[in-house]
Amino acid sequence: MMMNRSLLRAAARSLQAGPTSVAGRRCASSAVFNWEDPLAAAELYTEEELAVQDTARQYCQDKLAPRVLEAYRNENYDRRILEEMGDLGLLGAHIQGYGCAGVSTVASGLITKEVERVDSGYRSGMSVQSSLAMTGIYEFGTEEQKERFLPGLAKGVISGCFGLTEPNHGSDPGSMETVAREHPTQKGTYLLSGSKTWITNSPISDIALVWAKLESTGKIRGFIVERSRATPGSYETPAIKNKSALRASITGMIHMDNCPVPAENMLPDVEGLKGPFTCLNSARLGIAFGAMGALEDSLARAREYSLERKQFKGNPLAKYQLIQMKLANAATDAAYGTLAAVQVARLKDEGKATPEMISMIKRQNCDRALANSRILQEVFGGNAASDEYHIARHVANLFVVQTYEGQSDIHALILGRAITGVQAFC
Amino acid sequence: MMMNRSLLRAAARSLQAGPTSVAGRRCASSAVFNWEDPLAAAELYTEEELAVQDTARQYCQDKLAPRVLEAYRNENYDRRILEEMGDLGLLGAHIQGYGCAGVSTVASGLITKEVERVDSGYRSGMSVQSSLAMTGIYEFGTEEQKERFLPGLAKGVISGCFGLTEPNHGSDPGSMETVAREHPTQKGTYLLSGSKTWITNSPISDIALVWAKLESTGKIRGFIVERSRATPGSYETPAIKNKSALRASITGMIHMDNCPVPAENMLPDVEGLKGPFTCLNSARLGIAFGAMGALEDSLARAREYSLERKQFKGNPLAKYQLIQMKLANAATDAAYGTLAAVQVARLKDEGKATPEMISMIKRQNCDRALANSRILQEVFGGNAASDEYHIARHVANLFVVQTYEGQSDIHALILGRAITGVQAFC
Amino acid sequence: MMMNRSLLRAAARSLQAGPTSVAGRRCASSAVFNWEDPLAAAELYTEEELAVQDTARQYCQDKLAPRVLEAYRNENYDRRILEEMGDLGLLGAHIQGYGCAGVSTVASGLITKEVERVDSGYRSGMSVQSSLAMTGIYEFGTEEQKERFLPGLAKGVISGCFGLTEPNHGSDPGSMETVAREHPTQKGTYLLSGSKTWITNSPISDIALVWAKLESTGKIRGFIVERSRATPGSYETPAIKNKSALRASITGMIHMDNCPVPAENMLPDVEGLKGPFTCLNSARLGIAFGAMGALEDSLARAREYSLERKQFKGNPLAKYQLIQMKLANAATDAAYGTLAAVQVARLKDEGKATPEMISMIKRQNCDRALANSRILQEVFGGNAASDEYHIARHVANLFVVQTYEGQSDIHALILGRAITGVQAFC
Amino acid sequence: MMMNRSLLRAAARSLQAGPTSVAGRRCASSAVFNWEDPLAAAELYTEEELAVQDTARQYCQDKLAPRVLEAYRNENYDRRILEEMGDLGLLGAHIQGYGCAGVSTVASGLITKEVERVDSGYRSGMSVQSSLAMTGIYEFGTEEQKERFLPGLAKGVISGCFGLTEPNHGSDPGSMETVAREHPTQKGTYLLSGSKTWITNSPISDIALVWAKLESTGKIRGFIVERSRATPGSYETPAIKNKSALRASITGMIHMDNCPVPAENMLPDVEGLKGPFTCLNSARLGIAFGAMGALEDSLARAREYSLERKQFKGNPLAKYQLIQMKLANAATDAAYGTLAAVQVARLKDEGKATPEMISMIKRQNCDRALANSRILQEVFGGNAASDEYHIARHVANLFVVQTYEGQSDIHALILGRAITGVQAFC
Repeated sequence: MMMNRSLLRAAARSLQAGPTSVAGRRCASSAVFNWEDPLAAAELYTEEELAVQDTARQYCQDKLAPRVLEAYRNENYDRRILEEMGDLGLLGAHIQGYGCAGVSTVASGLITKEVERVDSGYRSGMSVQSSLAMTGIYEFGTEEQKERFLPGLAKGVISGCFGLTEPNHGSDPGSMETVAREHPTQKGTYLLSGSKTWITNSPISDIALVWAKLESTGKIRGFIVERSRATPGSYETPAIKNKSALRASITGMIHMDNCPVPAENMLPDVEGLKGPFTCLNSARLGIAFGAMGALEDSLARAREYSLERKQFKGNPLAKYQLIQMKLANAATDAAYGTLAAVQVARLKDEGKATPEMISMIKRQNCDRALANSRILQEVFGGNAASDEYHIARHVANLFVVQTYEGQSDIHALILGRAITGVQAFC
Repeated sequence: MMMNRSLLRAAARSLQAGPTSVAGRRCASSAVFNWEDPLAAAELYTEEELAVQDTARQYCQDKLAPRVLEAYRNENYDRRILEEMGDLGLLGAHIQGYGCAGVSTVASGLITKEVERVDSGYRSGMSVQSSLAMTGIYEFGTEEQKERFLPGLAKGVISGCFGLTEPNHGSDPGSMETVAREHPTQKGTYLLSGSKTWITNSPISDIALVWAKLESTGKIRGFIVERSRATPGSYETPAIKNKSALRASITGMIHMDNCPVPAENMLPDVEGLKGPFTCLNSARLGIAFGAMGALEDSLARAREYSLERKQFKGNPLAKYQLIQMKLANAATDAAYGTLAAVQVARLKDEGKATPEMISMIKRQNCDRALANSRILQEVFGGNAASDEYHIARHVANLFVVQTYEGQSDIHALILGRAITGVQAFC
Repeated sequence: MMMNRSLLRAAARSLQAGPTSVAGRRCASSAVFNWEDPLAAAELYTEEELAVQDTARQYCQDKLAPRVLEAYRNENYDRRILEEMGDLGLLGAHIQGYGCAGVSTVASGLITKEVERVDSGYRSGMSVQSSLAMTGIYEFGTEEQKERFLPGLAKGVISGCFGLTEPNHGSDPGSMETVAREHPTQKGTYLLSGSKTWITNSPISDIALVWAKLESTGKIRGFIVERSRATPGSYETPAIKNKSALRASITGMIHMDNCPVPAENMLPDVEGLKGPFTCLNSARLGIAFGAMGALEDSLARAREYSLERKQFKGNPLAKYQLIQMKLANAATDAAYGTLAAVQVARLKDEGKATPEMISMIKRQNCDRALANSRILQEVFGGNAASDEYHIARHVANLFVVQTYEGQSDIHALILGRAITGVQAFC
Repeated sequence: MMMNRSLLRAAARSLQAGPTSVAGRRCASSAVFNWEDPLAAAELYTEEELAVQDTARQYCQDKLAPRVLEAYRNENYDRRILEEMGDLGLLGAHIQGYGCAGVSTVASGLITKEVERVDSGYRSGMSVQSSLAMTGIYEFGTEEQKERFLPGLAKGVISGCFGLTEPNHGSDPGSMETVAREHPTQKGTYLLSGSKTWITNSPISDIALVWAKLESTGKIRGFIVERSRATPGSYETPAIKNKSALRASITGMIHMDNCPVPAENMLPDVEGLKGPFTCLNSARLGIAFGAMGALEDSLARAREYSLERKQFKGNPLAKYQLIQMKLANAATDAAYGTLAAVQVARLKDEGKATPEMISMIKRQNCDRALANSRILQEVFGGNAASDEYHIARHVANLFVVQTYEGQSDIHALILGRAITGVQAFC
């Protein structure tokens, strides 16, 4: 039991009596329908997992929710969020050791869900740190790399990003152009050149896990690029502004022009797409949970609005069949998606999850979160155009969430290939 | 452990090595994607449940599948099927005692799924016996009623049906018109009058669990009507022919005109809609499993066809993106729906299931089975018009399955009410 | 003005005062919303076109509608229908001369719509005669061929079918295997060998317009095969039974084994796929109208049912929002589809229609007719399972209508190619 | 022929040879499929209408398109746009006299379509001036009111807005709370009090057509409120900022606190909801055209992107079936929607349009524009998150366009009532 985990659990225990306590809900729910958890997924969680969820929810509702409107309006990500999350043990929570909480994959997914209940951008900022950067180092790094980077990343004092996607190769990372050459004169140093884009946190990150083709072999390798060790002009991370979504997160490019990286920063144990795909699978599993958080928040807000808003003879909108249909559909998809995510998370901890399973739940949960949030947006009528109702933000965010880390169609073709044994990418 | 259960398990054991064995699949699947069970629901089943599923599948594929084409063409239900099912312990399998297998709700759901994998009509014939007639007697009958009827129903030597729906009151059973009056002269006898329609098995059933309003109280009560004890002309059960679906099951009406029923055949312990709704909930939970069976069969057939059928330069249909999308969507919905059904079945055995949960899974699983089977039908092109490809039969059946025992919209409004606290039925 | 046309118009005039007169409706509709023609498509029709529609509607409602239930149940197509249609001038009505009415493409489309309002199978039987067999001969035949066959086809005393689709080549006729060889000894005779399937009317047709690859050139050519001139065993047309749809039409195969066809029965003026595709385009344009007829009938029946059927406190189903949504959507798609079909028909008469336009309206109108009829089926609840409500028949039929003469996905790829200039068939 | 109209036509003529000329396209298109006008709607336009469309398109592409990105980012509407439009005769173009162009409703719709091809917000700014403020004065004003206001509105030197919607009564204007009382001492003056919200252009408008209940009668009446004549504090029009869509238009509230309005500014000829509904119908018809413009632009951009963007072995995205499906669907809905809008516009000019027709096309065209633009957004993958691809802007805008002036569900219930004769607003 690591320090952060202790913190996490202690925080959790103190919260269990609170009014928004998930754990508290379980006892009361025995045979009562709970619209916030229609199929009683909470019955599948351990006490520890419920405590983790409570901790995460408390933090998210108390500390993140109040910041999101301003952050989204101004495309302003508060760097301190990573440290706050680190203090609670929420970063890299699924990792054993190295200052990480070492909780189950379900617990880790529930953290993700609680963060995305507030905003998909905040969740993206956490995912890139936890599932992409930390997971990459944890799974494929040397012991020295792990000890050097993971504790700081877990605390949020180091910020990490993940450089895979390139401007011309969104869905097809195998065609990447970024290259790592051995330094012509300086032995033990690689020079990285190339561009990465749509990199969450790149402008504020201290390190980047960058994937590049090793010139000598043509194989994809991973490099921990430290901003502090780059030579002037060799490593630039301009922010991408005027985004149409995920504006509460910061996104940028990474331009590398013979950026020097010491050989000891290359991940030793992985070659080809296995490295980035392992990280992506970890992140995608998190997204499958996270998207359900955004959907649940959309549902809760639409429900509340429908009960408060009166039209036609003083009836609340909630009284109309067409409104109830929207709410029922959203609740159903949120419930189904949560069960599926829990199932795959459990299988993962048992060593039985496959990438196709993760494709399935990443795709379906994102698709359904997006489709339902759009329908729920209709409940708000014209008021949806005001950002103070939050629904338009979820809708805009969820489009990107559906798209990144494997657009829905790509995952459909991955599944189609797994089902038929025939590939149809071209 | 009852006799039938022993039979069930013995049969199951002998099958476990077989090529279609579900249990056998589990070992091999540890980290391999199995398109027939994409999210590894089988990991949630006990050994006993897997054995039950194997027994049921073996029977269904060996004995039912070969009969279905002819039965559907000619609207000809083979009465012996009930006895065959009874011999294997498949009827009322969730009931403890009285000659029933007493298996878990999940096991019972898996039986349902295997039967509906062949045909929704066959499953309907089983459901009305198990979930409606037997459950009603088991839950609300006297000890004497249970002992008198359940063993014969479990063996399939007695055939039971369930008389709730009336011609003018499909979705609103509370308005029923069938009435039970005390016999004017013959004490201890009720006279039932009224009509029921769309009653699966009514033309061949020996007993009918009929719901009627007691004239003296205006409250709905349940009566076990025995065909053998009806006076001439007081109890007619004409078949409804030329159905557009479920043609492998037999459906009829029940016309009662002062049909005498002894008072000891009235269910003692239930009044109002609670009685029929308890039975319906049991059946609906079964349908949530069953519909996934029909969907899985549709998927398996479409997949196979897509691999065999070549178009345009000799490519199998399976190579086309538009085909793969259909398969991927169907596999996803089948996997999600199965997980949800398992979750509610487990909750039921723990006393934690609510009617709204069952509304949710009955509705969603039927909706998705219907929608996907229709899309899968497109894979077959014009050949779908031949009944030998079976897909049109599933499509036609699933429409009725979506409609009966609570049409999709009705369940949406039940859910809407549960979510908002406001009812919108009118 | 040909004889049949005179008949058509005379019949029409006498009907114009009648209660179901389309023409009569126009005057009254000036600024009143007419749910049967929500966007006032009738304003686009000439007086003659309205008269033709009236004639067709009167016949269809009076003579076809009463037969359809029995025909569909028993897969029994009444051969006399062709003669009845011929008497009214409804066959090949778009053709100038040769005993044909020579009306506009819009008028022809309205005939199609009225027939399919009763049943898609009846419309198929007419289409194969008018749009496929007659159009092929008219467009590509010699003067002698036209004079020999068209008048009898127009009267319905000769029955024609169209042999293009083969068992292994549904969506890809270019790969056909049927071959026409010159007779080794008998000059001026071809011997046709090969199989065609899903051929409407083949078992009852006197002639078949068969497409085959000429052995000497490898090019596809059209042959008018006369049953009366086939040698024993060289020309078989077994019926396909147990269809899941279009059961009021008769469908079969054509097996040819060195079937002799005189050279003067080969269409002289066309080679390759242009011939069959011209016929298919004519038929597809008719289908775009026809499918709207089936949809309109589905809507009218669902509307009527919703007004008559009471549930929950005596409200008609029509009072429920979820029901009204279904009706509104169907009415919208029927109105839009009709306008689009009229536009393309007008363009065709001006020489401005393209095959892609026809792909668009065939696809969209079939897709929407199918989707909406399925939704409207829900209005009937369990009663949809009775064939006496007719809705299940429309639903089953429309699936095949969506599929034949270019499945929806195929037309999507035709459109995609036209939009992008890139083909994606493989 | 008014001056502006002359300008409009002269401008048009000079453009007809240009490369983007719509008129020019017609000649060439006779039997060629044009993906930008798949069903050749242009064949339905008069030469004048084509010229008007060309003028509008030229202006919109040259003058509006370059401004939209910055305007949307900064929620900054350029007041000069109204004057530019006025100079070209685009404002109130359907009005006869008073300095207006007096073109057909189709021509007016084509202007709307061209403006919304750039941005729905720009179209909203024009619609409120033309269809709401000007139409209201033109249809119901005194001759004096028309002469006083219309010419300035037509030139864009006066800016008008339309005050109907109130904070608590979005879909139900009949419940409005704004009241007009006679001034207690000052005869011939009304005092208006109440709040209006989501009022396009209110912050920059010189006049507002405000609907209020006359205290003495309880009936809704229209008032032309002139900002210049309001007493201090009696008329406030704060902007609503941080909108999630339509950010290139300016939107605000109108707060009136005993705002004095001279009696001669009350519209004399209309009472009740007929007044605002007439204006709304005019605007809704415009929206039905406009939404097709936004959809066509979304399609054009997605198509272009799909041709330029390469993934997987260098294939353009356009080569993938899943991409082609999206394009084909969008092109179909754009073509159908345009035909329907043209039909209703023609009927309107013939006095045959009904409000239900307008409900149908406003609803359907907005629904389809929104649904398809969302699907097309997927073509862009992650790049959709950059505002420089414009697609996310259309998607966000179209949600509001679907919602305002009658949310889709409201129009469905209007149609449902028209179809069944039963109202379901409950």
